[in-house]
Amino acid sequence: MRFELGDALVVLERTPRVLRELLAGLPDAWARATEGPDTWSPFDVVGHLIHGERTDWLPRTEIILREGESRPFPSFDRFAQFEASRGKRLEELLDTFAELRAANLDRLRGFGLTAGDLARKGRHPELGPVTLEQHLATWVAHDLSHIGQIVRVMGRSYTDAVGPWRAYLPMLGSQR
Amino acid sequence: MRFELGDALVVLERTPRVLRELLAGLPDAWARATEGPDTWSPFDVVGHLIHGERTDWLPRTEIILREGESRPFPSFDRFAQFEASRGKRLEELLDTFAELRAANLDRLRGFGLTAGDLARKGRHPELGPVTLEQHLATWVAHDLSHIGQIVRVMGRSYTDAVGPWRAYLPMLGSQR
Repeated sequence: MRFELGDALVVLERTPRVLRELLAGLPDAWARATEGPDTWSPFDVVGHLIHGERTDWLPRTEIILREGESRPFPSFDRFAQFEASRGKRLEELLDTFAELRAANLDRLRGFGLTAGDLARKGRHPELGPVTLEQHLATWVAHDLSHIGQIVRVMGRSYTDAVGPWRAYLPMLGSQR
Repeated sequence: MRFELGDALVVLERTPRVLRELLAGLPDAWARATEGPDTWSPFDVVGHLIHGERTDWLPRTEIILREGESRPFPSFDRFAQFEASRGKRLEELLDTFAELRAANLDRLRGFGLTAGDLARKGRHPELGPVTLEQHLATWVAHDLSHIGQIVRVMGRSYTDAVGPWRAYLPMLGSQR
């Protein structure tokens, strides 16, 4: 599938609503479930997505548009949410994520990106040169990947409960 | 996580809303995407979930409650949706799924299942004896597994578009 900005926006704008339907009001047995030590719960994932809205997707877009490859992106803290989400309720995180995402997509639309802009490059600290188009496609794939993580964590909570059906549910059976 | 009927219901009742937020109005480039020949698109998955509502989850629950292990469950057709969904719009499938799921959960609640009922057994044609609790836990895990499949299929559509970031997105990189 070729990248089209409109296709990307239609997914990015619905992620907050998907997460709300999936998670708002869930008992902690689901929302705080993990896949074991040092793995993330659905609650942790929402905090990670918030941190991405604040420090990754729009800021890096602006670096690409303003500075190109002249300096590498600041690195992204994959563990910031453990401190930032502490003491917060899941519903509060879902609201924060929805507000940040809406504001970021408004700004993205405001750039009026052209095909030429999408081909512009930035410099990733580890991956090297990357285009704005690759960065925006990654935003979409990252959302989808973390929705997948949330449902996997929840599903695996029932690995024992499903009994022999585990053999028919690859999501439960693969290694953690 | 131990199985509790209330925890299961809270997930089962939100699946139609999650799918609606994820899929309603999506361009066909997303909704009809697959992972290659003989793999399912998001559209196909919704048809599969409809078939499960019609022929699997409630009917097998009733067989367990009424007939126990005396006869095996009828087998489930994993490909029925290809004929049943033909010519339909995705929004129509989402509506049908929501109506069937709501009706099935009403019936499930109406059974007033006790701990004793959850321990009752049926006979799966391949897996052998299974409890009602395992059957209902599988309903939940099956929902979550197919939501995971839908976002995986969508995310993998951008496998090329993300460029070097593929290395950071295991959902795109693992074998199909």
